[in-house]
Amino acid sequence: MATLTISERAQAMPASPIRKLVPFAEIAKKKGVKVYHLNIGQPDIETPKAAMDAVRNADIKVLEYSHSAGIESYRRKLVEYYKRDEIYVDYTDILITTGGSEALLFGFLACLNPGDEVIIPEPFYANYNGFATEAGVNIVPITANIEDGFALPPVASFENAITDKTKAIIICNPNNPTGYLYSKEEMEILARIVKKHQLYLFSDEAYREFCYTGKHYSALQLEGVEDNVIVMDTISKRYSACGARIGAFVTRNKELVNAVLKFAQARLAPPTLEQVLGEAAVDLPADYFEATKAEYLKRRDTLIEGLNKIPGVVCPNPGGAFYAMAKLPVDNTDDFCQWILEHFSYENQTVMLAPGSGFYGTKGLGMQEVRLAYVLKVEEIEQAVKCLEKAIETYNNK
Amino acid sequence: MATLTISERAQAMPASPIRKLVPFAEIAKKKGVKVYHLNIGQPDIETPKAAMDAVRNADIKVLEYSHSAGIESYRRKLVEYYKRDEIYVDYTDILITTGGSEALLFGFLACLNPGDEVIIPEPFYANYNGFATEAGVNIVPITANIEDGFALPPVASFENAITDKTKAIIICNPNNPTGYLYSKEEMEILARIVKKHQLYLFSDEAYREFCYTGKHYSALQLEGVEDNVIVMDTISKRYSACGARIGAFVTRNKELVNAVLKFAQARLAPPTLEQVLGEAAVDLPADYFEATKAEYLKRRDTLIEGLNKIPGVVCPNPGGAFYAMAKLPVDNTDDFCQWILEHFSYENQTVMLAPGSGFYGTKGLGMQEVRLAYVLKVEEIEQAVKCLEKAIETYNNK
Repeated sequence: MATLTISERAQAMPASPIRKLVPFAEIAKKKGVKVYHLNIGQPDIETPKAAMDAVRNADIKVLEYSHSAGIESYRRKLVEYYKRDEIYVDYTDILITTGGSEALLFGFLACLNPGDEVIIPEPFYANYNGFATEAGVNIVPITANIEDGFALPPVASFENAITDKTKAIIICNPNNPTGYLYSKEEMEILARIVKKHQLYLFSDEAYREFCYTGKHYSALQLEGVEDNVIVMDTISKRYSACGARIGAFVTRNKELVNAVLKFAQARLAPPTLEQVLGEAAVDLPADYFEATKAEYLKRRDTLIEGLNKIPGVVCPNPGGAFYAMAKLPVDNTDDFCQWILEHFSYENQTVMLAPGSGFYGTKGLGMQEVRLAYVLKVEEIEQAVKCLEKAIETYNNK
Repeated sequence: MATLTISERAQAMPASPIRKLVPFAEIAKKKGVKVYHLNIGQPDIETPKAAMDAVRNADIKVLEYSHSAGIESYRRKLVEYYKRDEIYVDYTDILITTGGSEALLFGFLACLNPGDEVIIPEPFYANYNGFATEAGVNIVPITANIEDGFALPPVASFENAITDKTKAIIICNPNNPTGYLYSKEEMEILARIVKKHQLYLFSDEAYREFCYTGKHYSALQLEGVEDNVIVMDTISKRYSACGARIGAFVTRNKELVNAVLKFAQARLAPPTLEQVLGEAAVDLPADYFEATKAEYLKRRDTLIEGLNKIPGVVCPNPGGAFYAMAKLPVDNTDDFCQWILEHFSYENQTVMLAPGSGFYGTKGLGMQEVRLAYVLKVEEIEQAVKCLEKAIETYNNK
């Protein structure tokens, strides 16, 4: 007899490696232990009041569908936003998406066939696995090493990985989870590769405003690969508006814009109120990012300095975003990250970290690494680092 | 040499049949012609102020990600909402989605493999085609006839269409585009079919609050098929909040909830502000729907009576939603609907309609039909019907 089954792709969908420890954190909290959340990129910075007020004061009587490509005035406003960084696009190059997540999904669906391959330097943002699974696409990881500070792997690594099935390369710049900021030279290397093999370059620039050592060089600034480049953008991090779910799919490839618009039409529109928020945010005073960046920089310095002082811990200094990938003197961080929530506390405090293995496509890699998000206040980061030091000591003396 | 190409599924994605006439409407408007939009289900009813105020007054400092399954208090509030209609679910049976659209996409992705088939009575909501294409799923249409008022096709039609590849049946109740309200008996027939063949039953209940002749019987009220039934719901229509993009995926099938949660985690969360709106809307006074329904009922009666008075036009009286599917005395409504925008006006007014063919899966069907949404004021509907009558006369005397 026939039976109800879930689909193969549903079975293949990875559970979030970041969220799978949540139940253990909840148990710790129920025991009265304070948990420092270094595991997830949810900033504690306030969403700019001016942007929130734009929603509060919007004169909306009927909360209508927006255009499937997003509100035109917002798309035009984003043109101004990019122009400030010497990125020249037309508003018709921009489709507003429901978060950067949807921009990524649209890229996978519109550019790649089931069975196609996409090359991604690992460690990489774990949700790329989910979108790849939804689209039936295979991820081919090439390894970036902690010893090199997670710089772009050499050209030979890309060339070795490219097959007839390869259709795209994904980079995240500055990088989640490593914080690595790709240089102009590295971006030009990528441009040469995608031009030579006629691949798409998906550039996830969610953290573009948070660069500490050097200037951000966008994939949209590369010349001669206008049809190859797609930037996936989002307001989640730059305005501390993760819950808004507003992103953008930006490409000068008109055929692709038209294709993606069909996917956009199927889901009708992105949320209206948060587009109002996004549009208002572009008009924030220029010093908004300065203040935010200065705060993150202090946090970064506190975290990285603190981590590298712990015996056996190695953590490269990230050039951007608000993540760091550290190597701990433990054998298995999946086990360690669960143990630290389940069985450890120091002065009634503990730390939640994201185990490194979830960010690697190659099985067995990242087992000694963890990702840390420095989205907490400096004093909290100091406490968290102290906890971590004690935890490593205790864990290794078990 | 390799070339950049868009994916096969992007090529296969249908353009929206409702939106493809938009450029012609824009040209008409630029000429100063008033266009009555009967083509799209964007209500003109105001979004309830109490729900909008809940967003305006929400004390949100950081617009954070919500839980991937949605805000727990909102999910619990929806349990109360359904209970009023004698639908008994637990909050863990409910996942909040980004519009009903995402609930549908999750259903396709989580229940069906590429190459699987889903049976849908036609005419059907055109965007099912888009979600099916995204998931690589084939739609098998079975025809509901205008002569029967678009009632559920006979069991034999389903039985003939079921193959080894069939995994699901989709119904929309009350129906978009026909307005047909399925009876309890028809729902029980569907239950027997999905039970016998162990299929999923996707029940799109976007218009559940708008029933004029008879009570809505939800698929969640069917007994013995608890694991088979998924209700796709949305606040878009019932609170005139299409731009909120808040829906729900509701099923008692725990394996499926867990599977869909992984898709939900990949895209992180639905929009936060509009969940606040949705939660507040559940607490609207009981007479809210009475007033809205009374208004739609007047509009329906005006439209259907008017249409059936036009020589050669046949339009069944729909029991729910705010759509009607009418047969016009013209050969090709794709052509007619473009012509009426491009070349016709009456007292400087014209009408935008959705051609019927876009709602059929079987090629060649619906060529004489159009879908009309009665989302305009009674006086506007009267004007629109007058325009339509004149247009048909002129078109057929060309």
